[in-house]
Amino acid sequence: MVGRELLALLERRRFPVAQLQPFSSGRSLQNVRFRGRTLQAPAIDAKLLSCCQLVFMVSSEEVARRFGPKLAAGGVWVIDDSSEFRLDPKVPLVIPEVNSSALNFHQRLIAGPNCTMTGIAVAGWPLHKAATVREVRLATYQAVSGAGRDALTEFFDQSRANAARQTLAPDGRAPIWPCPARRALPQPIAGNVFPQVGSFDPQGHCGEETKVARELRKVWSAAHLRVSVTAVRVPVVRGHSLAAWLRFSRPFAPQRARRLLRHAPGLKLMTANYPTPLAMAGLAPVFTGRLRPGIDARELCLWVVSDNLLKGAALNSVQIAEHILRKGWLKRP
Amino acid sequence: MVGRELLALLERRRFPVAQLQPFSSGRSLQNVRFRGRTLQAPAIDAKLLSCCQLVFMVSSEEVARRFGPKLAAGGVWVIDDSSEFRLDPKVPLVIPEVNSSALNFHQRLIAGPNCTMTGIAVAGWPLHKAATVREVRLATYQAVSGAGRDALTEFFDQSRANAARQTLAPDGRAPIWPCPARRALPQPIAGNVFPQVGSFDPQGHCGEETKVARELRKVWSAAHLRVSVTAVRVPVVRGHSLAAWLRFSRPFAPQRARRLLRHAPGLKLMTANYPTPLAMAGLAPVFTGRLRPGIDARELCLWVVSDNLLKGAALNSVQIAEHILRKGWLKRP
Repeated sequence: MVGRELLALLERRRFPVAQLQPFSSGRSLQNVRFRGRTLQAPAIDAKLLSCCQLVFMVSSEEVARRFGPKLAAGGVWVIDDSSEFRLDPKVPLVIPEVNSSALNFHQRLIAGPNCTMTGIAVAGWPLHKAATVREVRLATYQAVSGAGRDALTEFFDQSRANAARQTLAPDGRAPIWPCPARRALPQPIAGNVFPQVGSFDPQGHCGEETKVARELRKVWSAAHLRVSVTAVRVPVVRGHSLAAWLRFSRPFAPQRARRLLRHAPGLKLMTANYPTPLAMAGLAPVFTGRLRPGIDARELCLWVVSDNLLKGAALNSVQIAEHILRKGWLKRP
Repeated sequence: MVGRELLALLERRRFPVAQLQPFSSGRSLQNVRFRGRTLQAPAIDAKLLSCCQLVFMVSSEEVARRFGPKLAAGGVWVIDDSSEFRLDPKVPLVIPEVNSSALNFHQRLIAGPNCTMTGIAVAGWPLHKAATVREVRLATYQAVSGAGRDALTEFFDQSRANAARQTLAPDGRAPIWPCPARRALPQPIAGNVFPQVGSFDPQGHCGEETKVARELRKVWSAAHLRVSVTAVRVPVVRGHSLAAWLRFSRPFAPQRARRLLRHAPGLKLMTANYPTPLAMAGLAPVFTGRLRPGIDARELCLWVVSDNLLKGAALNSVQIAEHILRKGWLKRP
């Protein structure tokens, strides 16, 4: 899912690619389109990879582990979208709007963040700089595409099966739909929501919840930040939404927060209306709205939406590459 | 939506109805089924209403205002599901599992609660009694049926229009769906989520968020409880879900909370798995799961699911009526 977005972005943003070599890391070999041509994507080849100047890895942790460090040691810039290296203290975890300063010429293995934390990392950063966020509580509304192609296909299959049920019951009641079979996702997703993204740890947190907390602390350089997340999958194709509570070290007026967010990089603050994942799908910025007081004057509530395949993944990687390019660290072909 | 559930429940629970007189308060006259017969539901008639022993009002605030107080003054028991009287200090706002003691023989106008707060009111009550909840933060995942029949029909229409789009784009990317027209709901709902239930106040809270906060304080008799809600509509037919953070006056171990919730009335605690609205649609209890630590030892996170048309509305009203009946306050026919 992310790989194809990446190719579309490299093309659309005129990234100076002299030669593109796609690889298929999954079970089946894929063809991809780039600049009007169809390219075959063979299985990964370490030799070919080592000849590249820049490698985008949009694959599994296992593939990242196997190829990433070696390539970077050989002088190749590697931007990895898996979670393998994100918490490695030697590897910069970068959202350019927040911490591009973490990039450096000698550390060529770079991690892109989890797609769910990207939205709050971008939207909350100007507020954190102004008044130090102490606590973050997040309830997520995560799109199915974040779980990959098989999950999305499963969502579509289940939706088609519901077509005949999209009507009131004969007695006028709201219908009760059966639970369909599932393979890729842990629960049915069409006409449903479920609070599980990843597997559970002994405390009862799921993988995504822990990732968001740890990665947000790293990207904000906020070791003492307290984060609590409930990660929920919703029947949306593209776009992760977040209901966020940010608790500050001191009172923070919504009006002041709006002023700070109005011109924040990579962010679009909506005040007359609010963002939704359907309307913002395919758009680059992080969107936020419904900025209002939380439980008291030290707390603000925000609603945040971003396209999980773009700013949450492919776009962030391309922005990192553009940053490296602007620094002159990547020889133009 | 709620009226038809109510009739089905009166029948299924063998409520001792001698004669049922349905009325249509909406724009069009409806027929309803009860005990195998089709009954015509004429426009509301104050005279006929005043001859009833018990009136369930599942209509607008306007209808409740116009008929409720007069009927109750005339000795008729009135159980109103609108929000008209919920915050009236003279009117009991009742969830039987929590505050049936608020019912009394001389106050015959009774309010049922908002369907969104019912879940957390039931699931949080045993914990509140044990350790005093100070703060409640809720992100909601609210079913379309909660917005009424027109909204549900709109959801079905939009879903049908998406049928041809339930496939990957030709280049293998996740599709970007167009935003369809809408009438009943403030945003498209198929393939979308949106953070608006009701209209906005000057502070930026929407109607549902304020209702949940005020009603929870009243039902729990907790005037100082601090509540912050983000209310979100999701493409689900039946069943409101909640991601909840409960903050206590002192540390509260999840294990102790589980013990308290295991035998709580009207509640089903899930530990091996968690509830989802699709699987719990049509079921009576409030379901909770994913009970785990929140941001520190004084906080617990919960996931709560209940059928908004049942425990959130019709079932709660019938349970109130059953309570009145058990008390001997309603003469058996």
